[in-house]
Amino acid sequence: MHRFTIIRYASSWEYLLSRLSKCLLLILLTTPIQLLAQVKPHKYVDPRIGSEGQGRVFIGPSCPFGMIKPSPDCTVKSNSGWLPEPAPITGFGQVHVSGTGGGPKYGNILIMPFSDKLDSIDHSSMRQNEKMALGYYSVLLKKHQIKTEITTAEKAAIYRFTFPKQAAKALAIDAGFFLGEQPIPDAREAQQFVGSEIEVVSATEVRGYSRIRGGWNNGAAYTVYFDAMFDAPIDHLTSWKNKKLYPGVSQQFDSGEKTGVLLGFKNGSSDTLKVKVGISFISSGKAKENIAQEIPHWNFENVRAQVENKWDEMLSRIEINADATIEQKKMFYTSLYHTMLMPVNRTGENPLWNGNAPYYDDFYAIWDTFRSSNPLITLISPKRQINIVNALLNIYQHDGYMPDARSGNYNGRTQGGSNAEVLIADAYAKGLPGIDYNLALEAMLKDATVPPGGIEEKEGRGGLVEYNHLGYVPYHIPRAGNRTTDYAYEDYCIAMVAKGLNRTKVYNRFIKQADNWQNLWRNDYKDHGATGFIMPKDSAGKWLDDIPYGTANNQHPTFKYTPLSREYPWYVCHWCGFFYEATSWEYSLSIPHQVPVLIEKSGGKEAFKQRLDTLFENRFYNVDNEPSFLTPCLYHWIGRPGLSSRRIRQIVLDNFNTTATGLPGNDDSGAMSSWLAFQMMGFYPNAGQSYYLLNSPMLKQVTLHQENGTNFKITAHHLSAKNIYIQSAKLNGKALNQAWIEHADIIKGGDLSFEMADKPSAWGTQVLPPVKN
Amino acid sequence: MHRFTIIRYASSWEYLLSRLSKCLLLILLTTPIQLLAQVKPHKYVDPRIGSEGQGRVFIGPSCPFGMIKPSPDCTVKSNSGWLPEPAPITGFGQVHVSGTGGGPKYGNILIMPFSDKLDSIDHSSMRQNEKMALGYYSVLLKKHQIKTEITTAEKAAIYRFTFPKQAAKALAIDAGFFLGEQPIPDAREAQQFVGSEIEVVSATEVRGYSRIRGGWNNGAAYTVYFDAMFDAPIDHLTSWKNKKLYPGVSQQFDSGEKTGVLLGFKNGSSDTLKVKVGISFISSGKAKENIAQEIPHWNFENVRAQVENKWDEMLSRIEINADATIEQKKMFYTSLYHTMLMPVNRTGENPLWNGNAPYYDDFYAIWDTFRSSNPLITLISPKRQINIVNALLNIYQHDGYMPDARSGNYNGRTQGGSNAEVLIADAYAKGLPGIDYNLALEAMLKDATVPPGGIEEKEGRGGLVEYNHLGYVPYHIPRAGNRTTDYAYEDYCIAMVAKGLNRTKVYNRFIKQADNWQNLWRNDYKDHGATGFIMPKDSAGKWLDDIPYGTANNQHPTFKYTPLSREYPWYVCHWCGFFYEATSWEYSLSIPHQVPVLIEKSGGKEAFKQRLDTLFENRFYNVDNEPSFLTPCLYHWIGRPGLSSRRIRQIVLDNFNTTATGLPGNDDSGAMSSWLAFQMMGFYPNAGQSYYLLNSPMLKQVTLHQENGTNFKITAHHLSAKNIYIQSAKLNGKALNQAWIEHADIIKGGDLSFEMADKPSAWGTQVLPPVKN
Repeated sequence: MHRFTIIRYASSWEYLLSRLSKCLLLILLTTPIQLLAQVKPHKYVDPRIGSEGQGRVFIGPSCPFGMIKPSPDCTVKSNSGWLPEPAPITGFGQVHVSGTGGGPKYGNILIMPFSDKLDSIDHSSMRQNEKMALGYYSVLLKKHQIKTEITTAEKAAIYRFTFPKQAAKALAIDAGFFLGEQPIPDAREAQQFVGSEIEVVSATEVRGYSRIRGGWNNGAAYTVYFDAMFDAPIDHLTSWKNKKLYPGVSQQFDSGEKTGVLLGFKNGSSDTLKVKVGISFISSGKAKENIAQEIPHWNFENVRAQVENKWDEMLSRIEINADATIEQKKMFYTSLYHTMLMPVNRTGENPLWNGNAPYYDDFYAIWDTFRSSNPLITLISPKRQINIVNALLNIYQHDGYMPDARSGNYNGRTQGGSNAEVLIADAYAKGLPGIDYNLALEAMLKDATVPPGGIEEKEGRGGLVEYNHLGYVPYHIPRAGNRTTDYAYEDYCIAMVAKGLNRTKVYNRFIKQADNWQNLWRNDYKDHGATGFIMPKDSAGKWLDDIPYGTANNQHPTFKYTPLSREYPWYVCHWCGFFYEATSWEYSLSIPHQVPVLIEKSGGKEAFKQRLDTLFENRFYNVDNEPSFLTPCLYHWIGRPGLSSRRIRQIVLDNFNTTATGLPGNDDSGAMSSWLAFQMMGFYPNAGQSYYLLNSPMLKQVTLHQENGTNFKITAHHLSAKNIYIQSAKLNGKALNQAWIEHADIIKGGDLSFEMADKPSAWGTQVLPPVKN
Repeated sequence: MHRFTIIRYASSWEYLLSRLSKCLLLILLTTPIQLLAQVKPHKYVDPRIGSEGQGRVFIGPSCPFGMIKPSPDCTVKSNSGWLPEPAPITGFGQVHVSGTGGGPKYGNILIMPFSDKLDSIDHSSMRQNEKMALGYYSVLLKKHQIKTEITTAEKAAIYRFTFPKQAAKALAIDAGFFLGEQPIPDAREAQQFVGSEIEVVSATEVRGYSRIRGGWNNGAAYTVYFDAMFDAPIDHLTSWKNKKLYPGVSQQFDSGEKTGVLLGFKNGSSDTLKVKVGISFISSGKAKENIAQEIPHWNFENVRAQVENKWDEMLSRIEINADATIEQKKMFYTSLYHTMLMPVNRTGENPLWNGNAPYYDDFYAIWDTFRSSNPLITLISPKRQINIVNALLNIYQHDGYMPDARSGNYNGRTQGGSNAEVLIADAYAKGLPGIDYNLALEAMLKDATVPPGGIEEKEGRGGLVEYNHLGYVPYHIPRAGNRTTDYAYEDYCIAMVAKGLNRTKVYNRFIKQADNWQNLWRNDYKDHGATGFIMPKDSAGKWLDDIPYGTANNQHPTFKYTPLSREYPWYVCHWCGFFYEATSWEYSLSIPHQVPVLIEKSGGKEAFKQRLDTLFENRFYNVDNEPSFLTPCLYHWIGRPGLSSRRIRQIVLDNFNTTATGLPGNDDSGAMSSWLAFQMMGFYPNAGQSYYLLNSPMLKQVTLHQENGTNFKITAHHLSAKNIYIQSAKLNGKALNQAWIEHADIIKGGDLSFEMADKPSAWGTQVLPPVKN
């Protein structure tokens, strides 16, 4: 029983075994030995990691990039739906996002089992025995002792409710529930109710929809249609509208009020009730079809096996050394898992236009994901990344702009730059085929030349007129600081794509604009021993030491702005500061295309080393947000890759682990997790450019099984707790003296091997990372 | 039988009598004598007027501002659905617009009776005996000799199909049909298919939807949901998707393809089949509810009587002398009717947000309607106009801008200015209560200060950055000429509202900007004896005699631009010219707030008279479009109101009549018709301002029965074919020596009487129309 010995590694395996149906056993027994000879990577995924604290990851079952994301909704106050106890479980909603901050989105179509008369809408319950696994969630609802299990396909999920013997079997379906409801009408970032409808179609089918607007991206109305099917006939029912109960009334039309239905089922021979829920953004007819296509049966375990297989197909593309610790395996594979929860594949589910192009929604936000999530997806499945980029171009063609964030089929909002441009530059630099790069350049140029107007945070580049006129965004415009640095980098991205396409005029303009961050670089400004910072400047070109706050007409108070100021949300609103969610200490180091210029402007290599040391040692570095993702690698550019590795190791040790609070900040649809995954593998992308910086791996061996059929293996010889420095490196047997490799080296396939030691060596000190212009 | 003698005036009365059911007779017999003592004004409405040629009016039944507008669709090529023979009738769609140009919109949910096997989707037929009346349409479909009759409520319509005896009774429902379909994907102004769904719910009910995007305003997707009910059970059915037939299959879900259903009914005792169709922009559940609310019975005549009563309630608010000719009555009441077809009251049918505010759609476009339609609605029903303005403000609050055009729940597009501002100024100047004018000023200022960005023709003011910087829109921006003149007038409108609200700073800025049209006034430019024209200028301030055309990279051809140039669509695209749908000869006279300045700049009163004479005598005046609506009245400002009257009379005589081609241009949701109605009554508004110019009435007497309970009567004594000049005027018995009156004079109620003669007198020559600043 070799195979069972090995798969016993999975902590939840014993439990799973006890649940294996004969059918699943049969599948297992007829599966080739080879597949079973190793533990499937999905076993190492622990959805609980990052679920508490700031991580806010989605904990329910989901397919990779899957549209339906069923999860407990624990009151309306959560971003992902779930909250730790003592929050009660209000019910189980079908659509969620992962790792987000700000105002919640989704949480639609709540279902909740109960065991009582049909006389109450709310059946919230406390819980026990909560279990989370990849593709599976279960809990005991204490109130009526009902066990709830969930697994899922792409657009349809299946629920199995086990009631106490002889107990009444009832189910509440609430088409009015949504996350983030607030008492203030039209509150910013708050979801707002628009309408809902519910209809009992037959003794075993209910359908309807929920229409909601707003939420974090302040989006227009979106509609989640659903169809629910039961494996037992409804015996009696009570529908409701606007809190009023209507016993026996099987339909509630949409009058702009909340609706729902309470269903009582016959007490048959079984104590379980199974419910299939299909959703659609098109219609309830399509939702029903999604069930028919994906779950045409009632076999819960079969659905579960399918979602596991889908994930194994993706996760196994990065194989790590079998003797890695359980902690490492959990951290690594859970990171890959988090990276592939979003954006969401809604191909065939676009209510705005049709066609054959892929359609993805819930870019939330590209500002968060462009640095590490999308580059990781590019390595795991370039085809997927190509689809994602093509979805962005399709959105550009129909909505006028690529999104920076998009959710509920609505572009909005921007935090800094128009970062979809980085995804295009990244795809172009890495040679992804199947993308119309001329169209892509057109989409980039739209961002860079046509002001979005109206609400300038919806899409495109806010403050563009001023940026193009002055070469920087002046202070009176919100987020002037990081808009300027982001736009400058994106201008670089445009230039590089234009260069490749022989668009010389465009290249000449934008390669020049790539310097624009320097227009906000205040050369002589000193702080904590560092010289030169990105600082606020008004439209007349005057540096601002004191910044006005508030908007009162009669008083004009100011406060001193320093490179450590976090003026929001105290002095100005959260999105009105000079930098979005960061300080000048962080953003002044975020110039991914001109690090050598940055070093020079900071006073040279030694001063720059001091500056980085000051940043980390004084905790000016912010581990929990994206603007500083590249910063620990900056030592590479002064020929000290060992220092980069030391910082990264310390950051991981201090901030990441396998507990529920094991992520230091919002996971932001996998951004935080993918950063970790790269660092564990020992390389990190400079997104938008073609190379990766090499760092000390935390895993002895990593093999990329690539979609093109090649393998790329990274081996860290003599890696240990002490031997954390790369002594020397070989690529395909030849010495590699630089601390970076090209994407082309990876996709060709090959071997990268490191010799590890307990001290830095001369490796990587001479040939510095490239700057392409 | 006194009453029958009188009502015989209606040309279609004999026919109607023959159709009176016992039930209707009963209603008539129990109705108070007083009401029957006069012909109801709806009898004078002839929907055929303006239906052919350029008028393009909607010919089907509709309630005032009614949401459902059933009509034959005669191929996909019509703007209003209907086309004259020899076009066949493809079927009967439920949503239409009236009087539009450009790419068609709507034409959704086609139903068509036939008498055959269920083996074909298309049942187009030639026609005979076509009858159009207010609230009623009937036709004999020649192919299978099926008589079709339609009447309607607000959101639900009822069809009565009479089949030949013993013939098979069948009905096609096509959820895939829409007007303006083009083979080119994403063609500008063309409607594009998004999706559809159909479901036979029971033996007597079908529901589904059609989702379409694009059309004239290049709008986002809108969805027309429907529910159809039959007074006989379905016997057999064949649904279809993407042209493939599915016999017996009762449901086709939305897969982004066209769907529909063919229904065969049992051959019972009756030869008629009645169908109720409810529509909704929310859901098919709401569509069903709309039927239940409005037509809970099968009494066709009852529905017809209701729609007639609704119109009579509105039309009877303007009573004209009983001895007016039939021609006059038809022209006048049909004009009022056309004016109240749009915008469409969709309160309770907004899929984007909910709330208690009124919601109107199909502003198509305010550029067309602000001059005469909205002022006429303000007189007939100020409550309605208040609701319309409040709907605009509600749209501003949720979508960010008031529309200039809006259709399918989507702002877009602009032709010239941001003319909703004129509606606000008009409401403010006329003292309409129940509008939050502070909010309204905010909405106006949004237009005037925040560039709409992206597609600059969607909403707000395109070219705003340049306009606010230079004081005019430079030539390289499309429609620079009329954008400049329109913006200047709207700036005047802002100033006037700001003044009233004591917003001095705002007033000071915008009253200055009201002069901006002068920045494009080329003082020395002469053409056909006139001096000074609005002419193109580039952003450096250089007048352009030669204008580039085309967009080729290698060649830069130009053409000479003159005040008579119509460069579109030959040299540039239709919406890319210097003026939209007009020449400089027309637009240089369209300065409604500063006519005295215009006269001075044109060389004084005599030169201005010459200029106007040249315009009319050389046919530079364009009767068929809105920019010149005020122009015939301009003689008032040089103290020659008699000349205004003479021109107006001639324009009406030459261009308006009661035939199908009786409107000289697109009716544009009643713009052309309302211009006529005002001229027939003898006064014309300067929209956005508080006064009306007095002209010779064409009717001996007009009485406004106002919503506030007062009556305002205009009497033209001794009016005849010769006596077409106002000799003297009295307001409430006192001499009125000016050729204008204030709105306040009207709403107070009173008597305005004119003494008519065959020559102009000194009346109106001294006290010229006011200019308020």
